[in-house]
Amino acid sequence: MITEAGLRAHLDAQARPPGSLGRIEDLAVRLALIQQSATPRANALTLLVFAGDHGLTEDGVSRYPSAVTQAMVATLLAGKATANAFARAVGAEVAVVDAGVDADLPGHPALVDAKVRKGTHNAAREPAMTQDEVALALSRGAEQAAVAIDRGAEVIVLGEMGIGNSASAALLMHRLAPAPLADCVGAGAGHDAAGLAPKLAVLTRAAHRSDATDPLEVLRQFGGLEIAMMAGAIHGAAERRTPVVVDGFICTAAALVAIRLRPEVRDVCVFAHRSAEAGHDRMLKALGAEPLLDLGLRLGEGTGGLLALPLLRSACALLSEVASLDDVLAGRI
Amino acid sequence: MITEAGLRAHLDAQARPPGSLGRIEDLAVRLALIQQSATPRANALTLLVFAGDHGLTEDGVSRYPSAVTQAMVATLLAGKATANAFARAVGAEVAVVDAGVDADLPGHPALVDAKVRKGTHNAAREPAMTQDEVALALSRGAEQAAVAIDRGAEVIVLGEMGIGNSASAALLMHRLAPAPLADCVGAGAGHDAAGLAPKLAVLTRAAHRSDATDPLEVLRQFGGLEIAMMAGAIHGAAERRTPVVVDGFICTAAALVAIRLRPEVRDVCVFAHRSAEAGHDRMLKALGAEPLLDLGLRLGEGTGGLLALPLLRSACALLSEVASLDDVLAGRI
Repeated sequence: MITEAGLRAHLDAQARPPGSLGRIEDLAVRLALIQQSATPRANALTLLVFAGDHGLTEDGVSRYPSAVTQAMVATLLAGKATANAFARAVGAEVAVVDAGVDADLPGHPALVDAKVRKGTHNAAREPAMTQDEVALALSRGAEQAAVAIDRGAEVIVLGEMGIGNSASAALLMHRLAPAPLADCVGAGAGHDAAGLAPKLAVLTRAAHRSDATDPLEVLRQFGGLEIAMMAGAIHGAAERRTPVVVDGFICTAAALVAIRLRPEVRDVCVFAHRSAEAGHDRMLKALGAEPLLDLGLRLGEGTGGLLALPLLRSACALLSEVASLDDVLAGRI
Repeated sequence: MITEAGLRAHLDAQARPPGSLGRIEDLAVRLALIQQSATPRANALTLLVFAGDHGLTEDGVSRYPSAVTQAMVATLLAGKATANAFARAVGAEVAVVDAGVDADLPGHPALVDAKVRKGTHNAAREPAMTQDEVALALSRGAEQAAVAIDRGAEVIVLGEMGIGNSASAALLMHRLAPAPLADCVGAGAGHDAAGLAPKLAVLTRAAHRSDATDPLEVLRQFGGLEIAMMAGAIHGAAERRTPVVVDGFICTAAALVAIRLRPEVRDVCVFAHRSAEAGHDRMLKALGAEPLLDLGLRLGEGTGGLLALPLLRSACALLSEVASLDDVLAGRI
């Protein structure tokens, strides 16, 4: 049985001042507890990028048109998006999962067709999804995590691509953090101050349409498909005791949904960074999460999660590769 | 000619919202300017751990005896120190440089004998070094950086091992930041509150002995040999346009010395993390430095620098491996 006390005692006995690695020690302990191993591993890493479109974009919540989702999926599949560059830099595999892109995507070896439907309905006017669609998205997300783990992934990183998804995430946060809607709405992919007011107005209309607070119903009302699938992936990873690295604002909204549905999955979530997106810090606080990095990122695609991955790898190395002070002082090295 | 404006324009044209990678973009720009390359590189990484002893330990400034320096050098050479574990995790080479360990060290392929003398004099009673010793330490440090770069290192990481060196670093900071001595003295390798007062008393005696403010004279008065050699390594790396990753409190004190001696070398210093050591935040501010990580580390050995290295690698990948938005929208990927 791996216990926190046992792990802390092991770390405290190492040839360095006790506590001298701060949050890396905490991370090492968490990874060991998740994997239930005194020598946790973070060598084989898989980034799952879930892509989906949002009916909300009809009402102008994003600076970019929905067609950009498809174009960026193609860029990810071509290995030329930022997430690909960062994944190569840290040695992570990338799979793109079509959760609900509003287009027929050509087949590609790195593309998983898990499409539930072509984009959500417009949540400003009607529920984003049906109950069946929500259930399907959650189960397909869990399945994607399971497939990646079966193929050897020791850590899963979540990423997303979906024009309009910061709007959907803001609604989820508003209802599930919970927090006033105005505190949940940010620039997303690049609104200026003038673009924020219309975005908030659309989301206010959406919020008035339903007073749901049940997490499954909130997810159904406000979407999106890629967010639901990420929440499912967290559930799937938790079932297999696999750490999930949570990227920025949208991913954290998916984690919020996953955790409100099943609080125990909080334990497998490693929060990568504090985004520059306005509401992220507050959403992290609602989850009691202190992220590893704070670099002013606001891209998505899992880029912040990828940047944090080497910290997990080093935390694992700390547990398994460092001599004890007793051995050093006795010359047994 | 590589210019910041040109690099920013390249980044702004990428297939992602402009500015969406925050400090990683800034880091990419800095690395490109240092290496004077639009495609900077951070694949071949070398950690140089400079080791030295401190006469100040005679007066009880450290919780550990000087003999621990030698024991930890042996641990580093055996590949079983924390820095070794982290170096393997990020793919960095490790070389240990004997700047002034107070012992005859057995030869080892990864050990460089650059010893200036066996430990500094006790700076509480007399100057830590002679002028010749300071000059020798600086030049040998520069030489070590040059050797590593000649062997292919694209980025140098500095680390140190030396019982008592947080005391020496506090004196350097006091005089060169400058800052009140009490704000420069911290727990080091693990003093509790009761141990801090005697440490401050010893350093107060040392500070009263000399009113030097000239950086070379401050370095001579307060040591140490490994700190002087790290300052020299920064000079050597700067001459070859090679980024130097600066670890925690002791390394930053070496950077402070290097920068006060030659302000232009500030440009090649990448500050890795904000240490838990009391004075570090203030010393960073004195250098106008905003470090990449803030994880409560206080170990040294270059461990914080190693943890930051993957961020440099990703920043390099960002500049060279990401498609432009124009190409994505035109389907040219």
